[in-house]
Amino acid sequence: MNIVLLSGGSGKRLWPLSNDVRSKQFIKIFKTEDGEYESMVQRVYRQIKTVDADATVTIATSKTQVSAIHNQLGEDVGISVEPCRRDTFPAIALATAYLHDVQGLGLEESVVVCPVDPYVNDDYFEALKALGEQAAKGEANLVLMGIEPTYPSEKYGYIIPKALTGTEAQAGATDLTAGTVDPVDPLAGAESASTAVVSLVDTFKEKPDAETAKAYIAQGALWNGGVFAYKLKYVLDKAHELIDFTDYADLFDKYGTLTKISFDYAVVEKEPEIQVMRFAGEWKDLGTWNTLTEAMDEPTIGDAVLNGACDNVNVVNELNVPIVCMGLADVIVSASPEGILVSDREQSSYIKPIVDRIEQQIMFAEKSWGSFRVIDVGENSLTIKVTLNPGHRMNYHSHQRRDEIWNVISGEGSVIVDGMEQPVKAGDVVTMQAGCRHTVSAVTELKLIEVQLGEEISVYDKQKFELEA
Amino acid sequence: MNIVLLSGGSGKRLWPLSNDVRSKQFIKIFKTEDGEYESMVQRVYRQIKTVDADATVTIATSKTQVSAIHNQLGEDVGISVEPCRRDTFPAIALATAYLHDVQGLGLEESVVVCPVDPYVNDDYFEALKALGEQAAKGEANLVLMGIEPTYPSEKYGYIIPKALTGTEAQAGATDLTAGTVDPVDPLAGAESASTAVVSLVDTFKEKPDAETAKAYIAQGALWNGGVFAYKLKYVLDKAHELIDFTDYADLFDKYGTLTKISFDYAVVEKEPEIQVMRFAGEWKDLGTWNTLTEAMDEPTIGDAVLNGACDNVNVVNELNVPIVCMGLADVIVSASPEGILVSDREQSSYIKPIVDRIEQQIMFAEKSWGSFRVIDVGENSLTIKVTLNPGHRMNYHSHQRRDEIWNVISGEGSVIVDGMEQPVKAGDVVTMQAGCRHTVSAVTELKLIEVQLGEEISVYDKQKFELEA
Repeated sequence: MNIVLLSGGSGKRLWPLSNDVRSKQFIKIFKTEDGEYESMVQRVYRQIKTVDADATVTIATSKTQVSAIHNQLGEDVGISVEPCRRDTFPAIALATAYLHDVQGLGLEESVVVCPVDPYVNDDYFEALKALGEQAAKGEANLVLMGIEPTYPSEKYGYIIPKALTGTEAQAGATDLTAGTVDPVDPLAGAESASTAVVSLVDTFKEKPDAETAKAYIAQGALWNGGVFAYKLKYVLDKAHELIDFTDYADLFDKYGTLTKISFDYAVVEKEPEIQVMRFAGEWKDLGTWNTLTEAMDEPTIGDAVLNGACDNVNVVNELNVPIVCMGLADVIVSASPEGILVSDREQSSYIKPIVDRIEQQIMFAEKSWGSFRVIDVGENSLTIKVTLNPGHRMNYHSHQRRDEIWNVISGEGSVIVDGMEQPVKAGDVVTMQAGCRHTVSAVTELKLIEVQLGEEISVYDKQKFELEA
Repeated sequence: MNIVLLSGGSGKRLWPLSNDVRSKQFIKIFKTEDGEYESMVQRVYRQIKTVDADATVTIATSKTQVSAIHNQLGEDVGISVEPCRRDTFPAIALATAYLHDVQGLGLEESVVVCPVDPYVNDDYFEALKALGEQAAKGEANLVLMGIEPTYPSEKYGYIIPKALTGTEAQAGATDLTAGTVDPVDPLAGAESASTAVVSLVDTFKEKPDAETAKAYIAQGALWNGGVFAYKLKYVLDKAHELIDFTDYADLFDKYGTLTKISFDYAVVEKEPEIQVMRFAGEWKDLGTWNTLTEAMDEPTIGDAVLNGACDNVNVVNELNVPIVCMGLADVIVSASPEGILVSDREQSSYIKPIVDRIEQQIMFAEKSWGSFRVIDVGENSLTIKVTLNPGHRMNYHSHQRRDEIWNVISGEGSVIVDGMEQPVKAGDVVTMQAGCRHTVSAVTELKLIEVQLGEEISVYDKQKFELEA
């Protein structure tokens, strides 16, 4: 299958784990079978590859996430980089042009567009595959995923399907009611997907109140899962109708001038013939602390001690010092280099306006070459710990307004300073005056303590250069 | 007045602010009039000097606290250093010998011994002064302070005074009932002290249950405030009776061989004629998070945001990142380089056994020359931030098993490395191989990032040397 994952923007709903440079999908919070933790994007990518090892995965995202994606998924994943944020229609148009013009996919091939952060089992990706196969049939221009509602939610849009035919209704009753799909057996999933219920869409409904939602569900309504499948040709044609561009490169260049408009508004609502395919497996949206912690396998991640008087407490601790909780009920605690959250479970959904008011420098970031963490903020200094992954190097760069000192604390690699290369290992010190061009590369994992000194230390004070041959 | 402050041992009841090297009395938690924060020991010292500018203050404490005391109170305060912990009788005997043999106080002079951590107003120190004056009269060998109980506490010992004479009872009724002493007017305090009610002690009672406490209070019982006043001669004689020693230096040398015994058990309980002086002012024991936070003038110290749904929440944050609290009730949150506590108010008194089980390296310490904080712990490295106070220097020392790198990030000073001195300023880097002798001194406040490298980094790997002339 060809799948495009829409990797949404930065957000603070999961502060202090998410911030302006780390979106929630990059937080490593899910325990895998080997005891390590993986992020939402890693989990989804692994699940896709489990279901379809040959799947072409392209992530549509902004420039700021490219480093984190390469760091977490490796270099093989396709990325359609949005030069700036322009809502889902331009993003899907760009990704589709990328698949055609850069990846070489044919116009008749189908693609499935899906959010990057559903918390689901493998059967969900079986369903996506079926969705792509359905789109390839060409019975309708668009095929959506309709999630079987488990309660009258006020958080989702609803899809009202046209009345089912007798045969379809029977297939649905037999294979896709909640719980009958085996989430751990891909074959069971594949079988259910092959007999999936497909209907035409009658109408779409915006997020209703609970009473209205009940009435919709009584009519057979489905949650709109935010998934679209289509043939490349269809979306490229729509894009050319609405945007004046020649090819991917041209669209990329004028991306900043495009109007912000959602795919739902620009395409879905105007399309007369849309199919919806039912999905009855587990599907969760982990957008808040409350829902995220419900998906945790254990009450705590990281160094944490809960005394016996704690009840329904979750701790996610990214710091290397312990968190001790005593006598708390229904509380979420999270600590990262950015800050500490202590919140009542229900209240945690109101976090955004509070943390939006916090002005703070970025304390942690993943980069394509590794990661860094701010460990000391001085008046005219900043000290960071840099971890370079084996075989990676920083950009060759200089700063106008600060000197830097590298203290190598572990690993082996080499530095280039004003064109001169030399090997480095633990204990070596490299000093760089402002203006001096420098880079470091890692042979084994390389860790540095970098001391920055200057009166105007800023992430914007950076000039990049090509390395001399 | 001559006052000896007993500065108790390390404790974890106020973890993460107190730890193995920082006792609760050194935590800066009380806001002063100029908006700065002071510690319990700083508050008490300032209050003593306000009441009696000429007071001789001696702090009886262990070696581990000497640096913190000098750092917080300066170099002028007297310190009677206990080579090891041996309970209060040896400690008071040593401090008394120190006052006589080192400070040159006469045998007939009186001294008041008091815990370092009462949370009180200036009138308390007026009362201590009166206690010293009463002891100097020589009517009894010992004069204790009896606190007027405000409720039938189960936490304190009780002193039952002998029945008051008519005159004394009247003086007490006139001047010393709770609330009549003006805590902000030293003259009013002095006057009340001069007419303070002094009784003979009938008997002492251990911590009772609440019912028994009520009965004691009905009899006129007082809380034992842990304060003793006496003439030097009295305690020195007692010390010579119980310990074979010649003078202060001799007592200091054999301190490790002394039996652990409390002053109450060794002296007070065996003394037939003891006076008790009543004190009716405010007196609080801030030994737990619950009582400590009650004494805070504002709900938060440090970077903290409480949303409107929080009720009765205190935050003490020593980290430089924000703590956000949402929808909490009756909760205490504290964060320091050592860890994070989130506790229900009542539950916080059960903290000790929990944090005793946490094995952790010291992450922060005050030293006589300044302070340090661990900012990164690597596998074979440790990075600390060092702050040297102006005019101070580290000991001249070396390490057998680690190399060190100093990155000067602010200030001016000089380093000596293997006997060679050179000035340093922000941006300078000094590397020291294992075995190399080194020190740094500050002209202005000097800050360093110190990177330690080695396979066996330990605080015990340190050899001190005299500086060559």
